[in-house]
Amino acid sequence: MIKVGINGYGTIGKRVADAVAMQKDMKLVGVTAHSYSFNTEVAKQKGYRIFASGDDDLKANGIKPDGDINSLLEEADVIVDATPKKIGKENLDKYYRQKKIKAILQGGEKHEVAGTSFVAQCNYNEAIDKDYVRIVSCNTTGLCRTLNAVNMKYGIASVHATMIRRGADPGDIHHGPINAIVPVLEMPSHHGPDVQTVLKNIEIFTTALSVPSTLMHLHTLTVDLKKKANVDDVVELFRNSTRIRVVRNAEHLRSTAEIMEFARDMGRLRGDMPEICVWQEAIGVISNAHNKLLYMQAIHQESDVIPENIDCIRAMTGFKDGEKSIKMTNETFGIR
Amino acid sequence: MIKVGINGYGTIGKRVADAVAMQKDMKLVGVTAHSYSFNTEVAKQKGYRIFASGDDDLKANGIKPDGDINSLLEEADVIVDATPKKIGKENLDKYYRQKKIKAILQGGEKHEVAGTSFVAQCNYNEAIDKDYVRIVSCNTTGLCRTLNAVNMKYGIASVHATMIRRGADPGDIHHGPINAIVPVLEMPSHHGPDVQTVLKNIEIFTTALSVPSTLMHLHTLTVDLKKKANVDDVVELFRNSTRIRVVRNAEHLRSTAEIMEFARDMGRLRGDMPEICVWQEAIGVISNAHNKLLYMQAIHQESDVIPENIDCIRAMTGFKDGEKSIKMTNETFGIR
Amino acid sequence: MIKVGINGYGTIGKRVADAVAMQKDMKLVGVTAHSYSFNTEVAKQKGYRIFASGDDDLKANGIKPDGDINSLLEEADVIVDATPKKIGKENLDKYYRQKKIKAILQGGEKHEVAGTSFVAQCNYNEAIDKDYVRIVSCNTTGLCRTLNAVNMKYGIASVHATMIRRGADPGDIHHGPINAIVPVLEMPSHHGPDVQTVLKNIEIFTTALSVPSTLMHLHTLTVDLKKKANVDDVVELFRNSTRIRVVRNAEHLRSTAEIMEFARDMGRLRGDMPEICVWQEAIGVISNAHNKLLYMQAIHQESDVIPENIDCIRAMTGFKDGEKSIKMTNETFGIR
Amino acid sequence: MIKVGINGYGTIGKRVADAVAMQKDMKLVGVTAHSYSFNTEVAKQKGYRIFASGDDDLKANGIKPDGDINSLLEEADVIVDATPKKIGKENLDKYYRQKKIKAILQGGEKHEVAGTSFVAQCNYNEAIDKDYVRIVSCNTTGLCRTLNAVNMKYGIASVHATMIRRGADPGDIHHGPINAIVPVLEMPSHHGPDVQTVLKNIEIFTTALSVPSTLMHLHTLTVDLKKKANVDDVVELFRNSTRIRVVRNAEHLRSTAEIMEFARDMGRLRGDMPEICVWQEAIGVISNAHNKLLYMQAIHQESDVIPENIDCIRAMTGFKDGEKSIKMTNETFGIR
Repeated sequence: MIKVGINGYGTIGKRVADAVAMQKDMKLVGVTAHSYSFNTEVAKQKGYRIFASGDDDLKANGIKPDGDINSLLEEADVIVDATPKKIGKENLDKYYRQKKIKAILQGGEKHEVAGTSFVAQCNYNEAIDKDYVRIVSCNTTGLCRTLNAVNMKYGIASVHATMIRRGADPGDIHHGPINAIVPVLEMPSHHGPDVQTVLKNIEIFTTALSVPSTLMHLHTLTVDLKKKANVDDVVELFRNSTRIRVVRNAEHLRSTAEIMEFARDMGRLRGDMPEICVWQEAIGVISNAHNKLLYMQAIHQESDVIPENIDCIRAMTGFKDGEKSIKMTNETFGIR
Repeated sequence: MIKVGINGYGTIGKRVADAVAMQKDMKLVGVTAHSYSFNTEVAKQKGYRIFASGDDDLKANGIKPDGDINSLLEEADVIVDATPKKIGKENLDKYYRQKKIKAILQGGEKHEVAGTSFVAQCNYNEAIDKDYVRIVSCNTTGLCRTLNAVNMKYGIASVHATMIRRGADPGDIHHGPINAIVPVLEMPSHHGPDVQTVLKNIEIFTTALSVPSTLMHLHTLTVDLKKKANVDDVVELFRNSTRIRVVRNAEHLRSTAEIMEFARDMGRLRGDMPEICVWQEAIGVISNAHNKLLYMQAIHQESDVIPENIDCIRAMTGFKDGEKSIKMTNETFGIR
Repeated sequence: MIKVGINGYGTIGKRVADAVAMQKDMKLVGVTAHSYSFNTEVAKQKGYRIFASGDDDLKANGIKPDGDINSLLEEADVIVDATPKKIGKENLDKYYRQKKIKAILQGGEKHEVAGTSFVAQCNYNEAIDKDYVRIVSCNTTGLCRTLNAVNMKYGIASVHATMIRRGADPGDIHHGPINAIVPVLEMPSHHGPDVQTVLKNIEIFTTALSVPSTLMHLHTLTVDLKKKANVDDVVELFRNSTRIRVVRNAEHLRSTAEIMEFARDMGRLRGDMPEICVWQEAIGVISNAHNKLLYMQAIHQESDVIPENIDCIRAMTGFKDGEKSIKMTNETFGIR
Repeated sequence: MIKVGINGYGTIGKRVADAVAMQKDMKLVGVTAHSYSFNTEVAKQKGYRIFASGDDDLKANGIKPDGDINSLLEEADVIVDATPKKIGKENLDKYYRQKKIKAILQGGEKHEVAGTSFVAQCNYNEAIDKDYVRIVSCNTTGLCRTLNAVNMKYGIASVHATMIRRGADPGDIHHGPINAIVPVLEMPSHHGPDVQTVLKNIEIFTTALSVPSTLMHLHTLTVDLKKKANVDDVVELFRNSTRIRVVRNAEHLRSTAEIMEFARDMGRLRGDMPEICVWQEAIGVISNAHNKLLYMQAIHQESDVIPENIDCIRAMTGFKDGEKSIKMTNETFGIR
């Protein structure tokens, strides 16, 4: 049993905790809580052990912590750090290196901090036995999954992707925009180089913007291929790739809202959709240049990296068979 | 076993279907499908029998219907009609009366169509052995639940409620407004009289408006009481009333978004919150007039009427003990 | 000629500057700029003198300041402070008292800071010859204008108002909520006491919440009157009150969005609507209690206080005739 | 004096009417009104003659029409048809051909209906003396303006553009989405061929989607050039092209909301921004392929086609000098 602790119990942390608890080969040691909130109440309801990492308002609200972060680190084999941007690096320096505990960081940290960036179906082997690995961001994970499939089959000459990003997560009431489109004013954006930390030989440039929606990101991609492609084969390719789901206008899955509704209806925990959703009707091949592939995909920013965290835990603790790990993880999520 | 059929498989229909399937004393005969969509796919995945009620595109998309609506009616003891506004009445006249099948209609229909309007904890007994009953709308259900509790304890002299309504459901991409507040330009609005179909002796007038949000309605209420009240007792009253949940700023449940997040975290199917959520910190008693009570509540428009449909099925088929029915239903929803 | 300086050149400051520039009896000395932005560019295009109050990035961007805030204070008879919340008080202590310059503060400051709170049509006389006066917030201004009219004619026993507030101003891309309704979790809210700084003898309690819209606030009001009223007379009352506009469903002015569109079409500068807009079809009198008046009004948070600032400047500098000042101001705004 | 009638008085029609009224060489004969609304009230206030084209509710609301559409057609030399999609074609067949009156249609009609599609700075000459001309849509106008400039200087090998479209206009309260991203599920989208009705030799493919915003569209463009480019030269090119405005992050013009705020501040009628706004900081040239140009632009869907309508009127009535017409038009809009 791999003993896993979670440091940071927000959007990503609480999902990784639930996922760890579902794995047969893992044991959730506990989670940290920074301050009291409904998050902590639910953790308590679920029977998770809670370790205090911040304010002392937990006791005042009826939560007795099982210790502080140091106690958690002592019991865990691997720590999944899901704290806010840049705090992961601080924790690595302050705690994980000193305690010599293996640690997974998230996409808010830079590649250099961990040295290895990870998307299970692209480079599982790179993480085997590593001490520190970074799970790339939700957007980068989405780009890597589909581009890796395309690259393996057709070879990619170059990629342009535009990322239309949700402005804030569903539970976030503080951030906007309420009624504006906000471009990322660097050209190209930093997401391209981030993809290259996983898919090292792909030429990719990206542009990005934010919109007043909370549900999912949407990517439009234009890919110059090395071999000719046709739409049906690309559909088939995506259908046969793990953690990619082909969705269809014909099923009335016409928007990010309807995809989220679909996930709720399927009974997924929290209505999550960890698969990257590619629209079948939005896959196109430019007719006078059969090497140019276009497609659109939706990324559930809250959940697509969760299976990656699970596989990464296995790789770091010496489980060698990436494909088998992916299969084990998928089963617990209900991913085909 | 009460055999239940569902006609209309949208926001309400699909939830009632799942709820019926969870009851030990009920059997889901099947659901109707008007046309092919992801709804139908999920119904099929769940093993529900599908009866065609509209277009013939089901077969074209690989769904073999188990018959048409008439076949469904033949097998069912009770039909829950969750078709769009006014179609319920048409179906009642066209099918249910002729087939002499008991039918539940939803709040889009007028009170007169069924003759009885229903909120389990207010008037369960009225529905016992009835042939046709109407479940009132999500807003009216929310008003009735908390006002009934207040009325039983303090006596209500009069109520003013303002309903801030979500503009469209989460999966609805067609309706706005995107960036406007839209008042209902009748004064008072029609919701007051609708409450009176259940709570017959309460004087209530209402105003309403719509806003660009998809998650929940929010009500602000001002209640003139017959007896003096204090905040702590009102908090206690709501805590002890079924299908009402007291939520707190202290838990960071400060908005409709965070309540929905809480429901997702708890693992509720679809992230639903059938309880009416009253904010503890927004319960107030006007100090120079101890008989005036103010409070705010959030209503999950997609799910609060689902338990009502279940209890109503029991009442109509002769189950006499309302409290027991509510308890049985609550258990399957995880409502305390 | 009254010489006026503007300190703080944001949503309110830039509008007061333009309004001062339009008055025949006033001279705009200049405005302060905290840092470079399109605001500063437009001020420069309009020929306004710019005084530096913050960072030194003005020169780097081709703007030569005409001095700092001290230079502005030396030339002005009255300063309108439109800096962010709480900075007004700091400026009063640091600059205005010391320089013995008359100052107008905005509604973000507390009543006590200035000692006098102002809505021209309610209490113009209170500001005559005062050194420091506070213009109340946009919401309080809106409540005072219509309630004062109602109070003068019918006498007000008590008021309950719910304020549905826009989440952020149109040009603000940072603040949310994107998809939530956010209640103010104090009951009653602080807006009631704020109204009482102007309308001293009115009993009023208020509740408030924010929604994902940027255009206008919307208020629903329930007023217990001392005398009986009927809808037609109330419509007439509002039609004959200054800075109140009766709008109609019949004209397709059904929402805050359409009111803003109307203001744009009329050619108002920035599409502003400084009048409080009351919906004719949403004025109601409860039939079994002819003393209860209901109405809904829309408040353009960016502009309703601008005419108040202008009248206040006149009052503070000794202009005794409030009605005449209001008329002079209205003419420059195109208010009937 | 060119006598111009406007048929259809919505978003586009009312703006063209105001623009015609501002031209020294044109006379506004009048506008049609389909039904009573605030639009009609404003037209009356502005002294425009109103011709009835629909319901008879105008008289009931105090508007005496100056005749019907036939009276308007008799007096006008040119009619600008700004009726909804497909009605323009119907009107062409039913009225304009029969009355032998020159007519301008909008981008909702197909190219074939008029035979000529128009963007003044691209193909003014094609419209000279024509009887029927189509002004292309707001998106196509935006693409044509900047791509034409790029093509003239560098030669375009091929273009990919993604259009992030506002979900509804600011005054439209009926259409969504409220909280979703909605892709156009055809690949490539129809916008590419529409550009080719004006810029005939450009290879372009487009993708599109809608978001919950009302203000402007945003385009991201990737252009393969025939000659090498550098960023500074492209900035200069756009600065020197008419009806294109280079906006800057440095001025805090970081979003569609701030651009609209800027237009309001400048005192533009209705806060319109007919220029295509290109972000300086979002112009990029891919470093290892100096022929690939990236940029982002914002399109004010309500107003960018208005100057085009004015120039087109001149061209169709025989004014040969396109550059001079553009200059005359620009001056009345305050476009540099």
